[in-house]
Amino acid sequence: MRVLVLGGDGFCGWPTSLYLSEQGHEVTILDNLSRRKIDVDLEVGSLTPITPVGDRLRAWRQVSGREVGFIDLDLATEYHQLTSVLLDRRPEAIVHFAEQRAAPYSMRSPATKRYTVDNNVRATHNLLAALVETGIDAAIAHLGTMGVYGYGWSGSAPIPEGYLTVKVPTPDGELEREILHPANPGSVYHMTKTLDQLLFAFYAKNDGLRITDLHQGIVWGTQTDQTAADERLINRFDYDGDYGTVLNRFLMQAAIGHPLTVHGTGRQTRAFIHIKDTVRCVDIAIRNPPKAGERPMVLNQVTETHRVIDLAKLVADTTGSEIAYLPNPRLEAEENELAVRNDHFLALGLRPTTLSEGLLTEVKEVAAKYADRIDARKIISRSVWRAGMPCAVDLVPAQQSA
Amino acid sequence: MRVLVLGGDGFCGWPTSLYLSEQGHEVTILDNLSRRKIDVDLEVGSLTPITPVGDRLRAWRQVSGREVGFIDLDLATEYHQLTSVLLDRRPEAIVHFAEQRAAPYSMRSPATKRYTVDNNVRATHNLLAALVETGIDAAIAHLGTMGVYGYGWSGSAPIPEGYLTVKVPTPDGELEREILHPANPGSVYHMTKTLDQLLFAFYAKNDGLRITDLHQGIVWGTQTDQTAADERLINRFDYDGDYGTVLNRFLMQAAIGHPLTVHGTGRQTRAFIHIKDTVRCVDIAIRNPPKAGERPMVLNQVTETHRVIDLAKLVADTTGSEIAYLPNPRLEAEENELAVRNDHFLALGLRPTTLSEGLLTEVKEVAAKYADRIDARKIISRSVWRAGMPCAVDLVPAQQSA
Repeated sequence: MRVLVLGGDGFCGWPTSLYLSEQGHEVTILDNLSRRKIDVDLEVGSLTPITPVGDRLRAWRQVSGREVGFIDLDLATEYHQLTSVLLDRRPEAIVHFAEQRAAPYSMRSPATKRYTVDNNVRATHNLLAALVETGIDAAIAHLGTMGVYGYGWSGSAPIPEGYLTVKVPTPDGELEREILHPANPGSVYHMTKTLDQLLFAFYAKNDGLRITDLHQGIVWGTQTDQTAADERLINRFDYDGDYGTVLNRFLMQAAIGHPLTVHGTGRQTRAFIHIKDTVRCVDIAIRNPPKAGERPMVLNQVTETHRVIDLAKLVADTTGSEIAYLPNPRLEAEENELAVRNDHFLALGLRPTTLSEGLLTEVKEVAAKYADRIDARKIISRSVWRAGMPCAVDLVPAQQSA
Repeated sequence: MRVLVLGGDGFCGWPTSLYLSEQGHEVTILDNLSRRKIDVDLEVGSLTPITPVGDRLRAWRQVSGREVGFIDLDLATEYHQLTSVLLDRRPEAIVHFAEQRAAPYSMRSPATKRYTVDNNVRATHNLLAALVETGIDAAIAHLGTMGVYGYGWSGSAPIPEGYLTVKVPTPDGELEREILHPANPGSVYHMTKTLDQLLFAFYAKNDGLRITDLHQGIVWGTQTDQTAADERLINRFDYDGDYGTVLNRFLMQAAIGHPLTVHGTGRQTRAFIHIKDTVRCVDIAIRNPPKAGERPMVLNQVTETHRVIDLAKLVADTTGSEIAYLPNPRLEAEENELAVRNDHFLALGLRPTTLSEGLLTEVKEVAAKYADRIDARKIISRSVWRAGMPCAVDLVPAQQSA
């Protein structure tokens, strides 16, 4: 298939682009390199030494013999360039990762709240409007988030895949209705993904666009078979307080002797997926799109759930790290259960890559290899959900205090 | 109270600003005059000869002895000016009309779809972010729409005020949950109001903002006691196919001998409110805001429901006009019932201004007085919900064919 990967230079986008290329798809990346530029603003960088996108693509050509295209394009503002690309490339599938994706960053300041909304809503809506205008019938696979559902809303019922059957009382008895699961976002970032859902529902209904929304859990791991094939292809690894994700951060902290940073009680249960499964799920999704006229297909892109504290203890036990309990910058319940349905991906052939010592060790080894690139002052989360909430001071890694 | 009226130069905003001023509030209008500028693009104008905003404000000062302030400001793009205004004026209430509000215009072209989303979402989000940043504790009253609910979704149950109690099945039996009524928008415009609802829910929860969302029906009528006090204060009257609203258009068509344009079967039932009640409802809303920490208060700003065809027949019967059945540019059911709860406003003292011959005649007389300002080529709706849908040719008013 001819595939566009929007946001194809990012943490999920890059390994997805290479995986899709390896599967024989004709891949073109559209990216404005915003993720790299935000690193400049935050005065931080990927733990791994990612190379410029031009070097990445040359290396991939040398390693695989395959071409991946690249177009520098801001989806939120460069609408007409987008329509030109669509008419020129005539994609059969579009993978849409092109949104600001960190909850802490989205709560950091008025400017980052506004950037997250302005960028994410306009990028998604421009894509939808451009498909309607050009008549290009490409299936969209969009990266959503488990965070649209919130936590603990439906009691002991596992979170369904997007839609929920409820009973509505009427004077003539109860009606059964299938509704989009009520939105319970926990940050401005998560909120933008709930807005996306309403955009998708409308354009699927009004214009027959074919859309799959992938409600993904927290991604862990760094490398895939493709990104590991050459050091110039290495994937990014975010370790900082805004963009780093919880399990990868624990493994990075263990690698440098920094206490494992648990916010609040750690009794929040979260959904997880390994980066190797992310890329497979996206391929499965674009091969199995909904039909025109159908509502958006929602798939929970999740393979397992864990309590944050259990992950911290697992890493602490195997590495001898300490655990530091820090104030929680988020406004959320101290504790929640979480059960998630992921029947669709299992039925479509996904064999989950779950937590294993080998994979944990691999991440820790990546972190250890590049430990000298870590700025320890960037580890603590400084973004708080409301002005004036407490946040921790810097904790000193063991090797520096020794 | 110190009140900002965002979009206070528009069809609802202007009479609301004057009414609030008359009630003794200290009113400042923020408006970028976008509604007047869209008229320039559409090559059409208000049926009534509205005066420039400066003339309006001078006339109001002469007539009432009261000052209404005006600031030319684009909420979607001039965030920092907005925070300055908030810190300078320290409003206790903010009325938010500042959104592109015509469904046909929002479906007219890729550019108008994008403008509607980009303007409405960013204006609303900037307001919310600015209140959080400045710490100004103003109650927001936002103009939403009945169109967020869609039509015919809940069978014989009347549409509740924003929230719906449903039963959710779980392994341990049914849970009762109160949810935001599922969103069923019929156009890009209506969709933006469903996005606003999610923005409001988040900022009420995370930041304790006090927000009332007024889900308004179709407004009819032109003048209020305040706008009728001097011809320079006259309210706008949109008669064109994009911005004109159904009952006012029938009365305008009757006034010039143009067939009454019914789209589809006309058996769609819609909710209505007279402009004199709009302004009262807004005053009631800002006097009775929710408390900090409460979810957004949703009020259905509606006084009656009617089938479109019944309104056409009523106008035809009293004026001798013909009815023309035209293709429906919207993708919607041919027929729907509609019952709406409006208990809150009734409990808070609203005495509804319902359809009466006197009020219908008043609108028709306004239209007749300024009939020479009508461009008959602008009457037919040209915006269609999907490319290629049929639309009618111009119909000739009786006085021109005679």
